[in-house]
Amino acid sequence: MNKSKHTFFCPDLDSGTLDEVEAGHAMRVLRLQVGDQITVINGNGRKLTATILESTKKSLTFKPIQEMAEEAIKIPLHIAIAPTKSNDRFNFFLEKCTEMGLSAITPLKTSNSERKVFKAEKGVKTLVSALKQSGNLYLPDLTEQINFKEFINQEFGATKKFIAHCENDPSKVNFKDCFTEKNEDILILIGPEGDFTQEEINLAKEKGFTPVSLGNSRLRTETAGIIACHTAYLQY
Amino acid sequence: MNKSKHTFFCPDLDSGTLDEVEAGHAMRVLRLQVGDQITVINGNGRKLTATILESTKKSLTFKPIQEMAEEAIKIPLHIAIAPTKSNDRFNFFLEKCTEMGLSAITPLKTSNSERKVFKAEKGVKTLVSALKQSGNLYLPDLTEQINFKEFINQEFGATKKFIAHCENDPSKVNFKDCFTEKNEDILILIGPEGDFTQEEINLAKEKGFTPVSLGNSRLRTETAGIIACHTAYLQY
Repeated sequence: MNKSKHTFFCPDLDSGTLDEVEAGHAMRVLRLQVGDQITVINGNGRKLTATILESTKKSLTFKPIQEMAEEAIKIPLHIAIAPTKSNDRFNFFLEKCTEMGLSAITPLKTSNSERKVFKAEKGVKTLVSALKQSGNLYLPDLTEQINFKEFINQEFGATKKFIAHCENDPSKVNFKDCFTEKNEDILILIGPEGDFTQEEINLAKEKGFTPVSLGNSRLRTETAGIIACHTAYLQY
Repeated sequence: MNKSKHTFFCPDLDSGTLDEVEAGHAMRVLRLQVGDQITVINGNGRKLTATILESTKKSLTFKPIQEMAEEAIKIPLHIAIAPTKSNDRFNFFLEKCTEMGLSAITPLKTSNSERKVFKAEKGVKTLVSALKQSGNLYLPDLTEQINFKEFINQEFGATKKFIAHCENDPSKVNFKDCFTEKNEDILILIGPEGDFTQEEINLAKEKGFTPVSLGNSRLRTETAGIIACHTAYLQY
């Protein structure tokens, strides 16, 4: 029984069962065998070592050996962002944020969105893969795409709300200066390639979103997302 | 004569001539014509508007109209980094650093490098494309790949030198806390997928490189590079 170098994702650890995709990866790609040791994470802070009990081509059952007590980073930041036209660019954003331990991602549909349709299911695959690779233990919560107006009309409780945009706006502050308390919940909106419209910016401001700048460069959407995440990451 | 939305790269503005690649892009792809207005940048802080004077399939001459006085960001940070096995990942790093205005990039060949050969010529294409898109005016200086030991044995004058590595090392400090003066020159070494070897870390320390951490997550090489760049970017 070798020490496992392979990590698998299983949202319900108590089920003791990997899904078809994870099982297939273990058995067909990695050619693991019954009795081999694996690491299993649930994407919500837990990590186990386990032994493979039984497997078919479509499933794999495991028996826990030991719960691992590891600290992992979860940044209390929620990024609502317009997915980029390029899938690769958006996937890169998803991956980088997972490495840094972002809490939540909401894909937005905005007036200038070049990408009108985004399926969360595909994005989750990118997140799971990045999570397993990174050694982090928290999978960001990725929701289905939602309309900008519908999103900002929600109640966010005590969360501090920001909108990053590129328009001239004397009320803009630096996002890096917006962190005052440890572990405060923060939400930031990041626009599409063509930015938010003035109407969207005004609506967000009416709803209590503070306009922020992420720096003096003209940044691509996915860069703005990564940078916003890292700005929060630096607080921890 | 329409206002130009198209930016071209020309390292020697006084030559008044775009090279074959840029000329081809202007004439064959964008189908610009003699008399059209273009924007030309030299990658070293200068930006002109100009008129197309003459063009063939292989070259394009332009006549300057106006020198644009724009401020652009140039972060006095030099990142020496082992290129990743995946070209896409390294290109993404090159692009993000160009958006943020990094000064210099040196590709390193290290003991654990999965990528033994990296041609600067191809990387420069990525940088130029990112520069034109970003609106920044400084092209990072990208040198040919160099052996780790050869690189760290160079003299770097007053530059503050750091090495980011993942080994347990009580002498490590947080990179974000290493910025004390405005505009100080900083050099950071970032290792390959398998990290620097202990021997490389020791050699760097002997040469005056301070070991630093970029945070508590296990970051991919290109993520570490982007994050190091953004940490410096936040100082400006």
